[in-house]
Amino acid sequence: DKPFVLFGGMNVLESRDLALTIAEQYKEVTTKLNIPYVFKASFDKANRSSVHSFRGPGMDEGLKIFEEIKQQFDVPVITDVHEPHQAAPVAEVADVIQLPAFLARQTDLVVAMAKTNAVINVKKPQFLAAHEMRHIINKFLEAGNDKIILCERGSCFGYNNLIVDMLGMDEMKPMAPVIFDATHALQRPGGRSDSADGRRAQAAQLARSGMALGLAGLFIESHPDPDNAKCDGPCALPLDKLEAYLLQMKQLDELVKGFEPLITA
Amino acid sequence: DKPFVLFGGMNVLESRDLALTIAEQYKEVTTKLNIPYVFKASFDKANRSSVHSFRGPGMDEGLKIFEEIKQQFDVPVITDVHEPHQAAPVAEVADVIQLPAFLARQTDLVVAMAKTNAVINVKKPQFLAAHEMRHIINKFLEAGNDKIILCERGSCFGYNNLIVDMLGMDEMKPMAPVIFDATHALQRPGGRSDSADGRRAQAAQLARSGMALGLAGLFIESHPDPDNAKCDGPCALPLDKLEAYLLQMKQLDELVKGFEPLITA
Amino acid sequence: DKPFVLFGGMNVLESRDLALTIAEQYKEVTTKLNIPYVFKASFDKANRSSVHSFRGPGMDEGLKIFEEIKQQFDVPVITDVHEPHQAAPVAEVADVIQLPAFLARQTDLVVAMAKTNAVINVKKPQFLAAHEMRHIINKFLEAGNDKIILCERGSCFGYNNLIVDMLGMDEMKPMAPVIFDATHALQRPGGRSDSADGRRAQAAQLARSGMALGLAGLFIESHPDPDNAKCDGPCALPLDKLEAYLLQMKQLDELVKGFEPLITA
Amino acid sequence: DKPFVLFGGMNVLESRDLALTIAEQYKEVTTKLNIPYVFKASFDKANRSSVHSFRGPGMDEGLKIFEEIKQQFDVPVITDVHEPHQAAPVAEVADVIQLPAFLARQTDLVVAMAKTNAVINVKKPQFLAAHEMRHIINKFLEAGNDKIILCERGSCFGYNNLIVDMLGMDEMKPMAPVIFDATHALQRPGGRSDSADGRRAQAAQLARSGMALGLAGLFIESHPDPDNAKCDGPCALPLDKLEAYLLQMKQLDELVKGFEPLITA
Repeated sequence: DKPFVLFGGMNVLESRDLALTIAEQYKEVTTKLNIPYVFKASFDKANRSSVHSFRGPGMDEGLKIFEEIKQQFDVPVITDVHEPHQAAPVAEVADVIQLPAFLARQTDLVVAMAKTNAVINVKKPQFLAAHEMRHIINKFLEAGNDKIILCERGSCFGYNNLIVDMLGMDEMKPMAPVIFDATHALQRPGGRSDSADGRRAQAAQLARSGMALGLAGLFIESHPDPDNAKCDGPCALPLDKLEAYLLQMKQLDELVKGFEPLITA
Repeated sequence: DKPFVLFGGMNVLESRDLALTIAEQYKEVTTKLNIPYVFKASFDKANRSSVHSFRGPGMDEGLKIFEEIKQQFDVPVITDVHEPHQAAPVAEVADVIQLPAFLARQTDLVVAMAKTNAVINVKKPQFLAAHEMRHIINKFLEAGNDKIILCERGSCFGYNNLIVDMLGMDEMKPMAPVIFDATHALQRPGGRSDSADGRRAQAAQLARSGMALGLAGLFIESHPDPDNAKCDGPCALPLDKLEAYLLQMKQLDELVKGFEPLITA
Repeated sequence: DKPFVLFGGMNVLESRDLALTIAEQYKEVTTKLNIPYVFKASFDKANRSSVHSFRGPGMDEGLKIFEEIKQQFDVPVITDVHEPHQAAPVAEVADVIQLPAFLARQTDLVVAMAKTNAVINVKKPQFLAAHEMRHIINKFLEAGNDKIILCERGSCFGYNNLIVDMLGMDEMKPMAPVIFDATHALQRPGGRSDSADGRRAQAAQLARSGMALGLAGLFIESHPDPDNAKCDGPCALPLDKLEAYLLQMKQLDELVKGFEPLITA
Repeated sequence: DKPFVLFGGMNVLESRDLALTIAEQYKEVTTKLNIPYVFKASFDKANRSSVHSFRGPGMDEGLKIFEEIKQQFDVPVITDVHEPHQAAPVAEVADVIQLPAFLARQTDLVVAMAKTNAVINVKKPQFLAAHEMRHIINKFLEAGNDKIILCERGSCFGYNNLIVDMLGMDEMKPMAPVIFDATHALQRPGGRSDSADGRRAQAAQLARSGMALGLAGLFIESHPDPDNAKCDGPCALPLDKLEAYLLQMKQLDELVKGFEPLITA
């Protein structure tokens, strides 16, 4: 568990070229910092606020890009699926498949994903308590897959705001490896007229708060030009800050994982 | 808009016989009280807490039961769909098709439902503000369907609790006809070890609070034996209280819809 | 309990003349509608957002105005106290003394108020659950006063927003008579640069939702010119709408209190 | 700002002897770790859940204990005041005086505290957003005191639960030095039949999350036997874990304050 694993990349596959550029940058930085790395991108944004929002290249083209990235940079890949029929073909390419937060209770999707035998990244829904994640884990176990990762991305706090419950995230650690999605947790849902707003300026602070818990992993999305990203730019880490950001997280992770156990109960 | 329409029935189609019993009771009471009535039941509970939870008879068998109910009682039917491919076949039988709260932002499902040209009942997600429902309506409009109903069923309030924002429900009235799901709003999500708990004893009180706003409709689920219902019994109105309950709601609805307009801005 | 009692008046005693004008209007309307009436105003707004905000005439001058109003209109009076030493002198004039929400757990203030033997109106803090009100009632009981009224005025919902938990308000009914403060519950705390904002346009809707529960009382603040009120104008009912508003509430109250008991547990 | 200052001690002054024991332990550990230290205790718990709860020795006796501690251990002292008349006498002994969260908007108390010219520790109310703290700071400035510290202790999250909004805490840093009250933030308000419960077992984790932001200070309460503490034992750090706990916090603080500035806006 030392150091953390990084699930990092971009929000949606805006283009093959941009995906390669971003993957290259992550690969270079994580190699330098010696951080285990998995490339993340979405081939389809299936729940954008508006029907006009950019959705991505779709599954078939997306999988081709993932294959190219895997081959060129020798990295595993994580991506999200939205319907049961996508699970098997996606898991042929992706090493980790992700269950989206809003869909985390859809039994058919859970079962289809479990059957691929891939590692599963479960995004914790914004409307569930930590202890309720046990139900979702149990669904995967019943369907024969115990390779579960739990991913925190914030909880609803009133309208149009998320809050990260650090005690809740800590509470999930005995259930499964916990990954902190430190950029989506910056969202202000519904904060713009047709999309979510975000608190990009506080990206490092929130990530530090989470990583201070001593977590299995960190999940982030970056963009070379966040103001012009096609999705979730207000939350994206500027790509040129990646190395400085990860260096902080690695030092923090090493420090807290080196602490002696401290029982205060 | 006077009186309100009732979307009423049962949670999941436990059996054909029980569905017929319940539909008969609703039909009789709503005829007596002169309340426009639509029979509601689900053929599949696709997002239960546990993989062992009862899910229902499935789409094919469910549609047969709906056809029998429509024919026998001469009532329209509403049911929910969970995947895009279900929209068309379900809309051939159901008069109103329902978009589940957790799925309300899945663009493909929205578009598939819109294309059926059926009336759409959109369950308001527990994590959205009233003003954000405009985005979902716009998706339907873009896809060519303007027959939208918005259905309030409570908002996340901390963990394992829902609250109905009466001002928010009122705020949606200029957007579309608003229906109050007054039994699901009684839920305490995650309140039992493997399912939601509920506040059945307060069923009439919560419904009265909502109906006092002067709404287009009321949505309820009943059961002849709530303690042994296969899903959401803790929120189900006991079937033998249906008439007394609806009589209250009708009187309340008539009173508030008869009030003179009162501008306090 | 039929009809409800009205605690109505103005936010802060802006002037003797305005207080008399407002009291006269309330007296006239409540006499006409046959609603038991208690005049409400504050002599000091002790917790405004800004030190420059208008606070009122203070205790001594305020009590003189209350005496004049009591004499001239033959009405009881309710006002709030903020420090233990104010309880006794205020209770010599006021018939009901009010414990402010933010101060509801200050033991010394509770005990000083209890000892006056006045009727006590406890504003429910925005940060407490219904079941926690039992602790505050118990403090009063221990101090020898059981004449307690509980007053709902909304719960914190994220930042800068209040929500009225109708099920929670209903849950308090077995503990004590419950009064709904239907204008403060319209607040958006911190919604203006230096004060709270409010949803005055929805004043009647929110009040109707609450009164549909069948409550012991209603608490409102009015102003002849809300846009120029010195405190909480964004929540104040325009004084010229008082009669139309109360007529609605009375009809609603009569209807729901006439309902047969309906047990749905 | 390196290292952080520690406001540490006990909840309520249970006895002179226990206060001396605790102060000695803090003094010894903070000297060893070279952490600037201020002794904290309350002479009166003025807002306990029950009238039977232990309140403390009162102001006069409390101030004597503080004087003895100051003299014997050569440490400054912080304590909280609840009524305006307490501000001046308390500030003659205490170096920092604290404005309680529930009272943070009481103008008379703010002004009385400001006039003492003491350093002020403002507990952030559980019902305010970070940006609203500006109003409270402004009240102190208007009253002539700019020596303000802001102290985070969690925000209401539904009923009977607190959550620490790390982004909100970070947002307050440009306004004033920010101190994290990392033990009260463990509370589950109303979580026991007659008092608050707490998550003592997670004391170090929550503190680490907060201190990872790079804060001016840390505020904690300890007890040699938390299960038998007279107030807030469920949140108290066991006294024998103080050194190990502070060593973690100091290392973390040094690390994050040594990071290069990282602009991600």
